[in-house]
Amino acid sequence: MITGKNYIGNKLSSNGSNTYKTFDPKLNLDTEWTFYEATKEEIGEAVDKAQDAFQSYKNFSGAKKATFLEAIAEEIEALGDELIQAYCKESGLPEGRAIGERGRTMGQLRAFAQLLKEGSWVEATIDTAQPDRKPLPKIDLRKMLLPIGPIAVFGSSNFPFAFSTAGGDTASALASGCPVIVKSHPMHAGTGEMVSSAVIKAAERTNMPDGVFSNLNSSGIEVGQQLVLHPKIKGVGFTGSIKGGTALYKLANERKEPIPVFAEMGSINPVVVLPSALREKGLDWAKQYAGSVMLGAGQFCTNPGLILGIKSTSLDAFTNALGDEIDKLEPTCMLHPNIHNNYEKGKNELSNQGGADVVAEYKKSVAPNHAQQKVLTVNGANFLKNPKLHQEVFGPFSIVVRCADAKELTEVLNCLEGQLTGTILGNPDELKTYRSVVDALQGRVGRLIFNGVPTGVEVCPSMQHGGPFPASTDSRFTSVGVSAVKRWVRPVSFQNWPQEELPEALQDGNPLSIMRIVDSEHTNKKLE
Amino acid sequence: MITGKNYIGNKLSSNGSNTYKTFDPKLNLDTEWTFYEATKEEIGEAVDKAQDAFQSYKNFSGAKKATFLEAIAEEIEALGDELIQAYCKESGLPEGRAIGERGRTMGQLRAFAQLLKEGSWVEATIDTAQPDRKPLPKIDLRKMLLPIGPIAVFGSSNFPFAFSTAGGDTASALASGCPVIVKSHPMHAGTGEMVSSAVIKAAERTNMPDGVFSNLNSSGIEVGQQLVLHPKIKGVGFTGSIKGGTALYKLANERKEPIPVFAEMGSINPVVVLPSALREKGLDWAKQYAGSVMLGAGQFCTNPGLILGIKSTSLDAFTNALGDEIDKLEPTCMLHPNIHNNYEKGKNELSNQGGADVVAEYKKSVAPNHAQQKVLTVNGANFLKNPKLHQEVFGPFSIVVRCADAKELTEVLNCLEGQLTGTILGNPDELKTYRSVVDALQGRVGRLIFNGVPTGVEVCPSMQHGGPFPASTDSRFTSVGVSAVKRWVRPVSFQNWPQEELPEALQDGNPLSIMRIVDSEHTNKKLE
Repeated sequence: MITGKNYIGNKLSSNGSNTYKTFDPKLNLDTEWTFYEATKEEIGEAVDKAQDAFQSYKNFSGAKKATFLEAIAEEIEALGDELIQAYCKESGLPEGRAIGERGRTMGQLRAFAQLLKEGSWVEATIDTAQPDRKPLPKIDLRKMLLPIGPIAVFGSSNFPFAFSTAGGDTASALASGCPVIVKSHPMHAGTGEMVSSAVIKAAERTNMPDGVFSNLNSSGIEVGQQLVLHPKIKGVGFTGSIKGGTALYKLANERKEPIPVFAEMGSINPVVVLPSALREKGLDWAKQYAGSVMLGAGQFCTNPGLILGIKSTSLDAFTNALGDEIDKLEPTCMLHPNIHNNYEKGKNELSNQGGADVVAEYKKSVAPNHAQQKVLTVNGANFLKNPKLHQEVFGPFSIVVRCADAKELTEVLNCLEGQLTGTILGNPDELKTYRSVVDALQGRVGRLIFNGVPTGVEVCPSMQHGGPFPASTDSRFTSVGVSAVKRWVRPVSFQNWPQEELPEALQDGNPLSIMRIVDSEHTNKKLE
Repeated sequence: MITGKNYIGNKLSSNGSNTYKTFDPKLNLDTEWTFYEATKEEIGEAVDKAQDAFQSYKNFSGAKKATFLEAIAEEIEALGDELIQAYCKESGLPEGRAIGERGRTMGQLRAFAQLLKEGSWVEATIDTAQPDRKPLPKIDLRKMLLPIGPIAVFGSSNFPFAFSTAGGDTASALASGCPVIVKSHPMHAGTGEMVSSAVIKAAERTNMPDGVFSNLNSSGIEVGQQLVLHPKIKGVGFTGSIKGGTALYKLANERKEPIPVFAEMGSINPVVVLPSALREKGLDWAKQYAGSVMLGAGQFCTNPGLILGIKSTSLDAFTNALGDEIDKLEPTCMLHPNIHNNYEKGKNELSNQGGADVVAEYKKSVAPNHAQQKVLTVNGANFLKNPKLHQEVFGPFSIVVRCADAKELTEVLNCLEGQLTGTILGNPDELKTYRSVVDALQGRVGRLIFNGVPTGVEVCPSMQHGGPFPASTDSRFTSVGVSAVKRWVRPVSFQNWPQEELPEALQDGNPLSIMRIVDSEHTNKKLE
């Protein structure tokens, strides 16, 4: 049941008088639910509760926190079809996508639970004492990662499950030992409340402290700003626009105590099609890329917005085939009229830039909020001199850039801002021939893909989802995969600390049987 | 030989007309050397060279970079006594300290070389393909840490060797695969030039690309600002004041592409003396702490500036003993008249705060630039209500805070800003009895010490030298110990990448024999 209230820890709360509705983009109508925006007092109460909860939660064993995460996954599943229907209504996305994304979300929670049970992620490092060392004795020193405190998580518009309420940011922060306060995304506040109810149930069932999780409704920017500025908040997770992420990043840096903001923002995910791929597999790639451009109405962070090749008849053939394939596909519904309006605006702005020709454009009339796809092409020189063409258009839109030669292609890559992904289509020998192209691409991205599509982000330890600014605010961390837990911790050293008072991860006996670095050697053995 | 010129890569350069001198604080006179401030063009040339050098240097093997680091250590040693004399002249520090710090600096370079030769630091993570996985096949994905680009290093005033030209920031950045441009500290520009000559010799001898290292002279803030704002600079290392570090941090965040700034700034390193320590070892600790307060004329980042206890006759006895021991020690020379003036100013400002009583004060006249030590005491209530007393006074100065009880002691710790270190003196049982005190301290510091002094920072893998803001700008990283290399890299994933084109660290055959995480298991084996 959706009440429209906030969760201040385990308590439902609706003290404010500002309300808002969510929207069904397919019906083009408000939903039946009304949401109560969190008040300043409710925000303060949630943060105070989080800080109190942190005092015990930070010391919980990995096994205990794992039970909590697994319980969240179970409780989300237990919400059954009612949750799926709320998701579809508030997002316009199809049921299959909702079920798939729910599976991914539960998978993420369980992956973090597994990480906690294994336990080595804390990077336990031990240097034993050398009392006889000359000229000075060496004192026993041990280091591990410890959680930093309450975290504010900003749900995304485009992944109501996997990057929202109990998505990767929340799961990773809870795994690290940090309480979480979610600023619910206004477009799917009902879905967010239902998922929150699952988190709260799981917290109660596994005896987590009240305040380990809160969910705040908000239709404007004030709730988020207050959260980020609150002295007890120690970190921020965000998935969304460059504008929104950059604003939070600046706000957090202006605090008396600046705090880290992990904003995953935008990307046009350049794809380089090398000659052999054009010659030998051009039509195949055209078909695959038409699907990747259109996937989720182009509302993934990894949709390919830029396809780059060297001028040739086979590039022309590929471009035409891409246009044909794109034309065959049916427009789908976007998340919200605002997103659809921004898409139309961005698409039209880029279409009106000098030198841009249309490759494909869906012109038939469509149902409300459905995105008419479009693909443009420009030559490299025009692209280089017009930074407007480098901008992301969030939706099923892409540009094919025809470069004069490998040198111009390299220049185009070097002028791009940071990206989540970069793809090379070709054969392995071409990675040598086009070394400078590959090098330039590697310098701009977090994930390099060979002969594939950038959409489809595997949740696994080797995933890097985060690239140089503005793909994300901190390219040293990932928001997908278990390494995401490293965002919410800092190393603390214990010098000459009594054995029995050390965290278990650092004790001689290695009671957790984790992999550690002892006197510069990796080992999972206990100390002699 | 000291020429007063900049190193723009391997080339000595003095195109500018602005010059300055260094100062001998013991003689209270300018040195004989004149330094040429780097011009805007020289800065640009150094950065361009660094960016060019990066194209090859980033791909060098760990073994090759290790040879370079070891050669730097050798060339520094080869400068012999001439270098030691320049250090002593420009810093006022004694010869024994100079020799010790040189040894530490060479040790740091060799520790990073060792890390590179072992090779596992790149966090190679592999998830192998599962072509038969349902519902979707899993594609091969591999991740490792790669260098980010040219780094600007700001030398510190207080460690002309270990935290300056070829100190920890430079050694760690060069180890990571990033070229370095040093903004030389104006107080020891001659020492910096000599060390730079050793780095350049080592670079030439081991065939490093021209531009892998540059050294820029500067007496004001302009050179540093231009460096930090240069689009090709990708990271900043700094050791110095909160004012200076915060200014660079803000500047770097205002760039179109913000870059990380690792500033290690200030700390008063609180020490909690629990009742058993006062009762059983008070006089011993008083003696040890007098030495720690006075070490290096109080010019270490880790000198104890704050000693906290619960009111008792044994705390009074300890405080009196500390005063007596401090009185016995002879004032030593500070680094520079500016630092000495700031010390006197800070000391006087804090002495004039209400409720502060003098425990010890050296009143005899001293040679120029020698620091007259002082210790004050206040009660907890006064400390809590006066944030002025929480400030660092850089020099041989400390405050003993007499708290009413454990609760007030915890409040005092909770009101402190972030610190590099926090120390507990007591017995192991008291860590339980005073759990809230220990917890509060742990939340504020990067390194916890039991029954020791905070001065003396071991260079080893488990060292955390960096704490919550403003101890450092990014508490997730350390500036001492081999983990410091992690500041200059970011993870990059390779999806479906051809074996022979993968970096060696990620190849199936594990040619570097490093520890990796393969399908979530730690292993140094090759893939089957």
